[in-house]
Amino acid sequence: MQRRLEYASLDPLFNPRSIAIIGASSDPTRVSGRPVQMLRDSGYRGNLYPVNSRRDSIQGLRAWPSIEAIAEPVDLALITVPAAAVEEALQQCCRMKVGAAIVFGSGYAELGEAGRAAQNRLAAAAREGRVRLLGPNCMGVFNVAARAYVTFSTVFSSGWPEPGPIGLISQSGAFASFCYSRARQQGLRLSYGVMTGNEADVDFADCLAWLAMDAQTRVIVGFMEGFANGDKLCAALEIAGRQGKPVIILKAGSSPAGVETARSHTAQMAGEDAVFEAAFRQHGAWRAKTLDELFDLAVMAATGPLPARPRAGVITVSGGAGVLISDSAWHRKVQLPALSDAAQRRLRERITFAPVHNPIDTTGLILDDATLLPDCLDALATEADVDAVVGFYAGMGTSDAAPAMLTALSAAAARHPKVRQVACVLCKPEVRNALLDAGVAVFDDPDRAIRAVEAGAAIAAQLGGTADSLAVPSAIPFTTAPLPLNEAQALAGVAAVGVPAVPVTVVHDADAAVEAADAIGYPVVLKILSSGLPHKSDSGGVALSLRTAQQVRSAFQAMMPPINPKLAGVVIEGVVVAPMLQGIELIVGLHRDAVFGWVIMIGSGGVHAELLGDRVLRLAPVTLTQAHEMIQGLRIWPLLQGARGRPPADIDALARTLSLLSRLRPEAAVSGIEINPLIVQVEGQGVHAVDCLIA
Amino acid sequence: MQRRLEYASLDPLFNPRSIAIIGASSDPTRVSGRPVQMLRDSGYRGNLYPVNSRRDSIQGLRAWPSIEAIAEPVDLALITVPAAAVEEALQQCCRMKVGAAIVFGSGYAELGEAGRAAQNRLAAAAREGRVRLLGPNCMGVFNVAARAYVTFSTVFSSGWPEPGPIGLISQSGAFASFCYSRARQQGLRLSYGVMTGNEADVDFADCLAWLAMDAQTRVIVGFMEGFANGDKLCAALEIAGRQGKPVIILKAGSSPAGVETARSHTAQMAGEDAVFEAAFRQHGAWRAKTLDELFDLAVMAATGPLPARPRAGVITVSGGAGVLISDSAWHRKVQLPALSDAAQRRLRERITFAPVHNPIDTTGLILDDATLLPDCLDALATEADVDAVVGFYAGMGTSDAAPAMLTALSAAAARHPKVRQVACVLCKPEVRNALLDAGVAVFDDPDRAIRAVEAGAAIAAQLGGTADSLAVPSAIPFTTAPLPLNEAQALAGVAAVGVPAVPVTVVHDADAAVEAADAIGYPVVLKILSSGLPHKSDSGGVALSLRTAQQVRSAFQAMMPPINPKLAGVVIEGVVVAPMLQGIELIVGLHRDAVFGWVIMIGSGGVHAELLGDRVLRLAPVTLTQAHEMIQGLRIWPLLQGARGRPPADIDALARTLSLLSRLRPEAAVSGIEINPLIVQVEGQGVHAVDCLIA
Repeated sequence: MQRRLEYASLDPLFNPRSIAIIGASSDPTRVSGRPVQMLRDSGYRGNLYPVNSRRDSIQGLRAWPSIEAIAEPVDLALITVPAAAVEEALQQCCRMKVGAAIVFGSGYAELGEAGRAAQNRLAAAAREGRVRLLGPNCMGVFNVAARAYVTFSTVFSSGWPEPGPIGLISQSGAFASFCYSRARQQGLRLSYGVMTGNEADVDFADCLAWLAMDAQTRVIVGFMEGFANGDKLCAALEIAGRQGKPVIILKAGSSPAGVETARSHTAQMAGEDAVFEAAFRQHGAWRAKTLDELFDLAVMAATGPLPARPRAGVITVSGGAGVLISDSAWHRKVQLPALSDAAQRRLRERITFAPVHNPIDTTGLILDDATLLPDCLDALATEADVDAVVGFYAGMGTSDAAPAMLTALSAAAARHPKVRQVACVLCKPEVRNALLDAGVAVFDDPDRAIRAVEAGAAIAAQLGGTADSLAVPSAIPFTTAPLPLNEAQALAGVAAVGVPAVPVTVVHDADAAVEAADAIGYPVVLKILSSGLPHKSDSGGVALSLRTAQQVRSAFQAMMPPINPKLAGVVIEGVVVAPMLQGIELIVGLHRDAVFGWVIMIGSGGVHAELLGDRVLRLAPVTLTQAHEMIQGLRIWPLLQGARGRPPADIDALARTLSLLSRLRPEAAVSGIEINPLIVQVEGQGVHAVDCLIA
Repeated sequence: MQRRLEYASLDPLFNPRSIAIIGASSDPTRVSGRPVQMLRDSGYRGNLYPVNSRRDSIQGLRAWPSIEAIAEPVDLALITVPAAAVEEALQQCCRMKVGAAIVFGSGYAELGEAGRAAQNRLAAAAREGRVRLLGPNCMGVFNVAARAYVTFSTVFSSGWPEPGPIGLISQSGAFASFCYSRARQQGLRLSYGVMTGNEADVDFADCLAWLAMDAQTRVIVGFMEGFANGDKLCAALEIAGRQGKPVIILKAGSSPAGVETARSHTAQMAGEDAVFEAAFRQHGAWRAKTLDELFDLAVMAATGPLPARPRAGVITVSGGAGVLISDSAWHRKVQLPALSDAAQRRLRERITFAPVHNPIDTTGLILDDATLLPDCLDALATEADVDAVVGFYAGMGTSDAAPAMLTALSAAAARHPKVRQVACVLCKPEVRNALLDAGVAVFDDPDRAIRAVEAGAAIAAQLGGTADSLAVPSAIPFTTAPLPLNEAQALAGVAAVGVPAVPVTVVHDADAAVEAADAIGYPVVLKILSSGLPHKSDSGGVALSLRTAQQVRSAFQAMMPPINPKLAGVVIEGVVVAPMLQGIELIVGLHRDAVFGWVIMIGSGGVHAELLGDRVLRLAPVTLTQAHEMIQGLRIWPLLQGARGRPPADIDALARTLSLLSRLRPEAAVSGIEINPLIVQVEGQGVHAVDCLIA
């Protein structure tokens, strides 16, 4: 792939004025014949040049013997010749100054080293000839407005789509076809679809940047298996962020099993999944966990404004649904603020049989009183300080009540453009589409409606926050003594650049240990110093909470061989004496990711914390604000704030240390720095690195 | 409601041979006219008696002036008269020995005390007259096979349904209509639907038991807001379990917000949500968290066999989908076992371009080679030891390939009746329905397909395990000294019935504390003894890890007033001296639930544990086997097993104590017993209650 974004040169790929199909077949059921048929029948208005040396016409169109025989300029060449002839065809494209070329054929990097070499030759030829290359092993591209269907997917056999605001990028062709069909079933309309396959040249990031700059595309949805160039991907996401366009990505490989499956079939580099997720979040993109979520958020982002905050008014025609929606909102942290007293009083004159809260339960009365729905929608939009109104309208979209519902919701969407209308309702397709056109997001499960509000508000906040995330703190060069370092040396290394560390004294006999403890003040900790020993406490190499000189002396003796047989044969560099600090144990670390470079991590420490799986990652460096956000994202955040009457921890000091650590740029030999534990004391008493590993 | 299950008498309600509509209207758009129209037009073959004293005919049917004028016996009377006349109409039904009556009208218990009194009068009259009463404030019942639509729901205006295997019970009428419509959209068919409303007599449990005994109904799905009589509900669930019928319930009120919303509109008693979930699980029912889950599991349970274990073979037409499915399987603990070597070799001759694993990725080859899909399905079903085959077939159900796919999947389902076929595929409705008829479960999101396998296997295991759960351990009467008890007394109380407790000594001065500590052996713990003080550690009333006599003496002095100002004015009954035990802290408790009676709980202790929200509940008593299952359900289970080389905890002793505690039946004054912490030591060293509260 191109190392840097070069999206401007993708115009001929996405928006070709002329298309040549090299190796065009007369048989429309074949991969080399289907695009000819589609382009001929779709209404594509550019010039079309089937190239086939053995025929005068292909599917009723004049055929050219070679691309070189075409007198006019060719924007896009689709290469569908047999594998052995692909390279030569691409060379001809280069000579003819074609803008972009697509290779459908497989048998390249996804099949191993020989294939990768062939693919690299194609990439080099394209680069040298300044032809942008999509593929190989891909399913092409389509532009709905221009009716340019340069793909062998069969999904369009059920009818040509209408153009819409959603750009679709998928590394997998078959999956893209499925996505396209699901989008259509859900009433969503696309601007473009591009299936990037092996990405020898044009890749996910290039397409993302191009679609971000495209005027027709307002939302970008993607399916990704992996990506090797983190900088390039981040640059593309930033362009989308600056354009204010939501990006929603379903990324496979969220588990070891998925990564293993991917290894056997894809040419993509997997990368560490959690780092992708951090990068997406940091650059304003939303990672969808499931296909349902991808499309629910596409509905939300493509058909109307995103709610600025997760605050919703709720109206239902079923009390039971109101309870379910309240449950969902509580679990997903969507607030349901109270209606103003005045609005409650007003509505209570209409809805006499039940208290009027948020959720408002209209029961079947909504069908008898034509102004009740509009009035409730107005009351919620104006008198509850909400950014969305979620309505449960049961099966109204399939019944005689559909026109009244459509009118009321469309009017409310128009009257209150900042309050998003979300409907949980069953509809006939035409009613559903009319609702979507009016800016109403439509779902058929109450929990998915609430999730869409939650995630929609999060996307809006991410897009709003992009500017801040672009303020990059300066890097701090970090060099240490030659590796390997024992923990005392590592601790001294990070302390030298400003990370607060406990004062440690390295001793070699019990007398010195007692002397050091007396100087530090009790209680103290003793720890074996040994670069090669990973879990010192499992080997009896740690003694905590020593309160007297006598305890220090006996603990020193007890942890050394031969009294401690577990350390027999271990190279012991000394014993560390350090103060025993009270506080909350955390782990912070900086490590080098193969795709995205330096990554900063914070997690909770201790044995329960492993079960919590409590860690937050970001691409380094992070600002102080971002560091605070990371800390607030921890599951133990309530503990840091001071749960159950405990004093709050020194969160400012923690954020400062986290941001500082994230700015360190270690020399090449270092793959990571891990401080474990970092003890956070109560407010005003700071944080202290107690142990450190520099690998 | 009836206190005990009396489901046999519901035959006239569910399967009426004759129906009278008291207050029948000529206007089919009215609540009192719609059932007449539906019963007239549906093809219902029983006798129909519109009752209206002011007309000779109603909607073309002969009308009767009163129910007493009808000469033939009436199975079911629908009462649609105005509120003031309902009681008299019900009395007439009693006199005429009608089998069952339905009251649609609202304004009863859901509106407060006066309404509740009126409802109680209806219930008493029905009980006395031996008429089963559905409602009030309900939407009636329908029997699809008999075409008996005794409801005012408008959902059937879009066409009469075909009968199917799913019985639907809902306390909410509007929500039931929505569920019915969604079921139909998803291709699911119902046997009966019943909407129980206020449940003055016939309730959720009665209907559940009746449907469990009904031959047409194979699966029961329910929507519940609350239920007051736990014993009755459990009895009904047990009948369904013994009949081997899956029960899937969407229960609202899983959050404080939901409970609050419910309070304002429902006549149901909410009960403690977590106890409902425990009761469902214990009696073989599955609690669905969302409507999607309810219907996905209904698809799974109603259209074919449930997979015995969560083990699946996977076949995909898209490598990317294979990765997503592997991810889902990993997160949801569905195993994807390897294909046998022989099968791998055989398929590798056909699928040459990629390694053949599980998932098998056929790519587009599946469209070119008609025998590939059947062969892959056979290989997975027979050579990977799986109970389900999950296939990702993209949009095949909407394309020309649909018939081939349908044939292959139907044949595989027939050939391998114990291996469930699950398809993630987009379909035209007729293809989807044909797949469902052939026993193939159909979804359009890969993760939902995997979740259906996971939950389907769990339901199968629950149904299989019902017999064990019926073995009830004997109860142990538990009486204590008169309440309130301080913690030493409470600990002595549970120790007296066999719960292992730490030996504690109560002292009143520092000398006695030292003497006790010397006798117990160091390290020890000191704790203030005071019945009224909830969080002793927050008040400086606890000192841990005291290792010397001197430490005990100074700790004693430091925790007493006036040195400890936090305890000034607190009634101090003494100071407890106890050994300091090493181990894992748990909380176990027994409490009286208003709906289900005694409930046993185990949870993890300590401050991180609160964040884990780690607790497991069951209805008491539990067998030793069930106690082990509860322990294995804890999030800290890996810790108890011995994570990172630590020795395993004494799990057998823990299970024994949990089962023992669950068998205690305290006297009426006691609402609960909580042991916190219960320390579990390493294997062979048992468990010890360290503190106990009897409230």
